[in-house]
Amino acid sequence: MHDLFYSRGVAVVGASSNPAKPGYKIIENMVTQGYSYGIFPVNPRLESVLGLRCYRSVLDIDDNVDLVVFVVPAPEVLRIVEEELSARKRTRGDVKGVVVIGGGFKEMGEEGAAKELHMKGELRSLGIRLIGPNCQGLINTETGLNTTFDMNIKPRRGGVSVITQSGALGNGILRMAATRGHFGIDKFISFGNMGDVDAAEAIDYLSGLQTTRVIAAYIEDVPDGRAFYESMRRAAGRKPVVILKPGRTRLGAQAALSHTGALAGEDLIWDAAIRQAGALRAYTLKEFYDAVRVLEKLPPLRGPNIAVLTVVGGPGTLCVDRIHSSRCLRMARLSDVSKERLRRILAPVANVGRPEGYVDMTGSVTEELHYEALKIVLEDGGVDGVIFLEEPPTYLSERWASEVVRAYSEQDPARAKPVVATVVAGDAVYDHIRILEEGGIPVFEHPEAAVDAIDKAAEYHLRTSCGGKRAAGGDLRHQIHAISRRSARASRAGG
Amino acid sequence: MHDLFYSRGVAVVGASSNPAKPGYKIIENMVTQGYSYGIFPVNPRLESVLGLRCYRSVLDIDDNVDLVVFVVPAPEVLRIVEEELSARKRTRGDVKGVVVIGGGFKEMGEEGAAKELHMKGELRSLGIRLIGPNCQGLINTETGLNTTFDMNIKPRRGGVSVITQSGALGNGILRMAATRGHFGIDKFISFGNMGDVDAAEAIDYLSGLQTTRVIAAYIEDVPDGRAFYESMRRAAGRKPVVILKPGRTRLGAQAALSHTGALAGEDLIWDAAIRQAGALRAYTLKEFYDAVRVLEKLPPLRGPNIAVLTVVGGPGTLCVDRIHSSRCLRMARLSDVSKERLRRILAPVANVGRPEGYVDMTGSVTEELHYEALKIVLEDGGVDGVIFLEEPPTYLSERWASEVVRAYSEQDPARAKPVVATVVAGDAVYDHIRILEEGGIPVFEHPEAAVDAIDKAAEYHLRTSCGGKRAAGGDLRHQIHAISRRSARASRAGG
Repeated sequence: MHDLFYSRGVAVVGASSNPAKPGYKIIENMVTQGYSYGIFPVNPRLESVLGLRCYRSVLDIDDNVDLVVFVVPAPEVLRIVEEELSARKRTRGDVKGVVVIGGGFKEMGEEGAAKELHMKGELRSLGIRLIGPNCQGLINTETGLNTTFDMNIKPRRGGVSVITQSGALGNGILRMAATRGHFGIDKFISFGNMGDVDAAEAIDYLSGLQTTRVIAAYIEDVPDGRAFYESMRRAAGRKPVVILKPGRTRLGAQAALSHTGALAGEDLIWDAAIRQAGALRAYTLKEFYDAVRVLEKLPPLRGPNIAVLTVVGGPGTLCVDRIHSSRCLRMARLSDVSKERLRRILAPVANVGRPEGYVDMTGSVTEELHYEALKIVLEDGGVDGVIFLEEPPTYLSERWASEVVRAYSEQDPARAKPVVATVVAGDAVYDHIRILEEGGIPVFEHPEAAVDAIDKAAEYHLRTSCGGKRAAGGDLRHQIHAISRRSARASRAGG
Repeated sequence: MHDLFYSRGVAVVGASSNPAKPGYKIIENMVTQGYSYGIFPVNPRLESVLGLRCYRSVLDIDDNVDLVVFVVPAPEVLRIVEEELSARKRTRGDVKGVVVIGGGFKEMGEEGAAKELHMKGELRSLGIRLIGPNCQGLINTETGLNTTFDMNIKPRRGGVSVITQSGALGNGILRMAATRGHFGIDKFISFGNMGDVDAAEAIDYLSGLQTTRVIAAYIEDVPDGRAFYESMRRAAGRKPVVILKPGRTRLGAQAALSHTGALAGEDLIWDAAIRQAGALRAYTLKEFYDAVRVLEKLPPLRGPNIAVLTVVGGPGTLCVDRIHSSRCLRMARLSDVSKERLRRILAPVANVGRPEGYVDMTGSVTEELHYEALKIVLEDGGVDGVIFLEEPPTYLSERWASEVVRAYSEQDPARAKPVVATVVAGDAVYDHIRILEEGGIPVFEHPEAAVDAIDKAAEYHLRTSCGGKRAAGGDLRHQIHAISRRSARASRAGG
């Protein structure tokens, strides 16, 4: 895995001079994102792509090529692997992995599955690892490696590594994170049909990386349930692992979908397995994405006590409501000293402590009070985290946001408490949101989403017995093994 | 109510020349939003505000004044009501209502409650209706009336009327709707402490308006549970009424919050009352807002059968999953003819009908196919609505969106089927989203949100026995009456 993510030299077979084609986009991505090593377009009909010399064949490339990306049809991939890669491997011995972007393999039924099996066999005998087919491949923001296409977005470096069985879903996550400044990316792997490198191997690799602080995985099925479980367990001991797993099996398997009873049971086993491994399961894309945001951006929550500091009554009420019905959180008890300090600085109309842990500064608040009130709440020993809510007037939004960030960032890093914000304002105060996000405070549009995200983070940080769903009974290992066998059968059936 | 929303002539008592003050913002709003009648700033210390002549007192205004907006402190409001409004009412008889923006009344405890009671008595004896105190007041997009402040946004005219007990929450909804083009506003009323005009009266008024297609109400408590129930019932027979009601009582009532048992029971009664009235209850701001978007923008859903047309596998899978676990929806069965037509035009890698009602066009789709495939699905008699999912490359996004809108808008208006879209892309394809929204197709960022919104709409359109939560047992009227008495006690206690 390391050799693939840190490939020195990438050949793109099926390079194109048409900006609408993946064979152009991939090269463009790596050029604009400053890939540190050689980029080698391969297409016998072109002289150059984006100013780079274009090669007739991978055999003609004199420099080191660790990775070959295929953006040609399936039969062409097979031919090139058999004729050219094997020759290159014999003579230069440098190619360590291939990314096969296109489909036309297992997902197409029996004939495609045979092609895929054949390709896998050839590559294995050459000692070359396979990503895909039918995928977006790899990103490593450390080296600028990026085999995805259609993005037109440069992911910022950061602590999230994404593993995805759906290239489109992974792409969507990259786009949301990049355009909203929600989090940065360390590694990204979209492996489509998982012909060779699979989720378990990817999780194992990422769990050992210092630069990966959170592992986010979208999984539809796994070839080996036990190996996947063990990889989750090992990784979750070191860092948060968030899993988005659709509740039912792959859409392709129509027959399976009609057996919802069996599938619902299987889903409970997934539930139990993820929980027992110490990983976090998300049930919707929003829950998945929001949990990842909070886990990457914020210091750990050290206890369940949340203070709500608000400028707005209605959203504040909805927030307290959601905390009451959350699994892991409760309203903090502010000390009498803190309450007294808050009452002294805030306007008489402000509400300090009704209910406990709730402070409504009301619309009469000033920018100085933003700073001072958040300081007081963060310094209270009974508070483990803060949810801050406001809807600033346009002309005050930047100044208010800066004061919130100032109070947040003046915390002692070793004992810092997380703060999340809620701003119900659409795109009306974009700069306010940007300042908070850049200052390390995740901003949510709805109060309930802020609570849900920090609740999910609490599930990890508090190693929690928050009272979630109970694990399914029975021998878990046995059940996981059964899933794995069923999955394998479905795969063989072309599902 | 009509006289208030269609006020001819508005005086703003407490007008200001400081652009940061509500006494300036309100006047600015009405000037820039083209209010059709006279705007009369009142402040004895100013000559003019925004080029408008400023009056020393409401008594000095020679023109017709239907509405007086107070942006002065509570004692000042009382004095002006007693001294000036009563004199004006005797002499000219024109003032029909007042909006009291500021707080300092019931929400401040006993002393404030006494002030509020006194003010209410004075106004009642003068035959003047009261909006507020402690509120944002009124918007009527038909006349440009707008007593809210801090918005800096002009709401587009449209079919949603908003009733809110939290000015901030209402403001947030206006901002989200306006900046994202989600829906337009007909009327807006934020009545804060509900000193006089209350939710029941507002719902009754809005239910009779042709221009209001959806009523969206954020309610924390009501003075008269029975009147509120009856107004919901009457309105819900004519148009969708969506209620966001926090699950517990007002934050202010700390004592009440410690009796969660009692409150949870009360919440069940709310649940049953809203359901029995034929209104829709939302439990989170997102659910509330998204349901309103779909109900305003789309033609009615005539049955539960949803087809999923996708370009992206992972989000498509999550979407089907959510439909399976929705309350009112199920996957449509496409006819064999439709499936054959789709298979003929789509690429061989496309998935038509696994599972039933699911069509994955795959990334190989063209702009023409967007149009043709959506046409075929919409024309299928077994389909009641469509969820469309994609994440277009930037350079294709506008053309693809236009083709989707073309297919959607070519439907016979009398039998049109709703289409909602999901685009998992953050702000990366903003124009794509804008074209879809302007073309009448609501766009969601997450597939589950799209399903949830159309599921909520189905609850209304199918007058549904979708199998939601059961109504609480017992005599409902009795229980509503009990809530109402408890609310009244809490109000008297200054909650």
